[in-house]
Amino acid sequence: MVDEALYAVVMAGGVGTRFWPASRRARPKQLLSIAGERSMLAQTIERLGGLVAPRNVLVVTSAELADAVREAVPELPPENVILEPQGRNTAPCVALAAFEIERRDPSSVQIVVPADHVIEPADRFRSALAAAVREARGGRLVTLGIEPTHPATGYGYIKKGARRDGDAQWPVHEVLSFVEKPDSARAREFQESGDYLWNGGIFVWETRAILSALRAHATGIYDALSGVTGGEELARAYAKLEPAPIDVAVMERATNVSVVPVDFTWNDVGAWPSLAEVVPADSSGNHVSGGVRLVARDATDCIVYGDDDALVALVGVEGLVVVQSGKTVLVCPRDRAQEVRAIVAQLENEAPDEL
Amino acid sequence: MVDEALYAVVMAGGVGTRFWPASRRARPKQLLSIAGERSMLAQTIERLGGLVAPRNVLVVTSAELADAVREAVPELPPENVILEPQGRNTAPCVALAAFEIERRDPSSVQIVVPADHVIEPADRFRSALAAAVREARGGRLVTLGIEPTHPATGYGYIKKGARRDGDAQWPVHEVLSFVEKPDSARAREFQESGDYLWNGGIFVWETRAILSALRAHATGIYDALSGVTGGEELARAYAKLEPAPIDVAVMERATNVSVVPVDFTWNDVGAWPSLAEVVPADSSGNHVSGGVRLVARDATDCIVYGDDDALVALVGVEGLVVVQSGKTVLVCPRDRAQEVRAIVAQLENEAPDEL
Repeated sequence: MVDEALYAVVMAGGVGTRFWPASRRARPKQLLSIAGERSMLAQTIERLGGLVAPRNVLVVTSAELADAVREAVPELPPENVILEPQGRNTAPCVALAAFEIERRDPSSVQIVVPADHVIEPADRFRSALAAAVREARGGRLVTLGIEPTHPATGYGYIKKGARRDGDAQWPVHEVLSFVEKPDSARAREFQESGDYLWNGGIFVWETRAILSALRAHATGIYDALSGVTGGEELARAYAKLEPAPIDVAVMERATNVSVVPVDFTWNDVGAWPSLAEVVPADSSGNHVSGGVRLVARDATDCIVYGDDDALVALVGVEGLVVVQSGKTVLVCPRDRAQEVRAIVAQLENEAPDEL
Repeated sequence: MVDEALYAVVMAGGVGTRFWPASRRARPKQLLSIAGERSMLAQTIERLGGLVAPRNVLVVTSAELADAVREAVPELPPENVILEPQGRNTAPCVALAAFEIERRDPSSVQIVVPADHVIEPADRFRSALAAAVREARGGRLVTLGIEPTHPATGYGYIKKGARRDGDAQWPVHEVLSFVEKPDSARAREFQESGDYLWNGGIFVWETRAILSALRAHATGIYDALSGVTGGEELARAYAKLEPAPIDVAVMERATNVSVVPVDFTWNDVGAWPSLAEVVPADSSGNHVSGGVRLVARDATDCIVYGDDDALVALVGVEGLVVVQSGKTVLVCPRDRAQEVRAIVAQLENEAPDEL
């Protein structure tokens, strides 16, 4: 059942370089079809279907990506694509969207989600969001906390406190603190304690509650964007803002924060090796995505991504990442895929056209 | 000094699959720029420059490749591209060219060379050919025999007999026999004996001598192609011929065969790993050819081939063959590159358009 007062903000401004060469400045990760046939952005909006009407879904992205985003989600009214003059991390993005939604419906509730995560199954996700919406209607800032499946040094954590509400399926807890990415020893402690959840960057709040929290804890951002609707004025405002994540600028400081622990499949698909987690292996034991055709001969445990009309042939190799994009090819072992960023940095200096 | 009675026959009908995906039916190895900026075919003709005039160079290829061959060697008169209705190995090719050259100059001498070998330096090659031409003017069938640098199971051998002529630089020997590719034990014996040379498929003979030898030893081919100049008649003649290499059909049977041992660099570039022998390593220790740009990060001993405007990035890999051609990519260890043929066979069944 769609709730007319429920809005969604999809944060789609990412410029990730870890998916080079498939991701480029003009086609970052959220516009790639990494797990499934549609882009991650389109799947993010599909996943909200039945809970939030498309006319209530706002996508916040950069001017450079405006056309590509509108093309990726044609079901969205074009005016629902909100353009940031430049990337300033998530706090200004949240504020910009909150002011826009306030103009549309000041008594609304918002769901804020990144555009580039894999979450399954969608019905359990929507069920958890509905529980979070109920909690948010009490004026709380609510986040979903993902039950960790292993100690992770790549994610931020949320320390949950006492149970305060909710039901057996979706209990609601106080949040004691937001914790930056831990080292591996702390990550193991977190895992053993059972008190820590992964911070998936998914938030639910009343429009008036987040604006009030921004005014209290991120006054500079609130003041800079209050009453600003776009154009020159917005560009000037953004130019003066420091980048700030919403976790740090608001959530860590607010005292009215709740978390709904969830245990559905969640993956932020941080880099090429993550494809092995979100794309099932084919009969040859390789993870193939993006539409490319793989011909494998005694090749296994590889991650292969490439264009719709492309062909990759692997003979006698194991554990490689092989990415084709147009006439660009990347080959590296799965455990060295993080070095793609160094390649990108090198190309930024030498051949910026390749990015 | 160009000799007006000297002709060259460049055999360019190969349909090799071992250079897939760069080589396709419409662009086999001889049309690839494997070692250097021009195609192997163009370099083969350049290498004869100063010895044979372009108007005396005939290229024998298939009808399918006619346009691509003319484009690859625009310096050649278009009528010098001789088209075989289908591939029947080298004996019919030699006969077809010999009859054509007989019509142009019955007292000519011919140099017959494959279109897809690397030979360096060109001046020593031409010097050896000049010595072979002198020997051929006595009515002998002459071949160049390459001094082997190692026991090779991939090449045929020529067993040389007594010295019969020539000078200190280019002695001329009788040929005792042509030997098929040996197993590794025999190849080692050949290497130790010093009596065996690699059969590089390079021949020199008078037009009347090869026609006479064809008539004597390959009567079926001689009769089928005698007086045939092209069109329907040629197609009918070829359709009835069995494939036969000139070595087997004529050279092994003839008694007037001479060999000039040569020690310049010769490489038949049989498959991707051969690139390491004919393309010098770059500063990262990789062999890059075809115009592609390589960005290597802790990657070495790789063979990389790709399009002019392509980019290959390798991180943390060693000893791989990585080939990009359009939107097709091959990745395999150097020592398994022979399995490319199995990939091609698989595609022939499943997706013939990829070939």
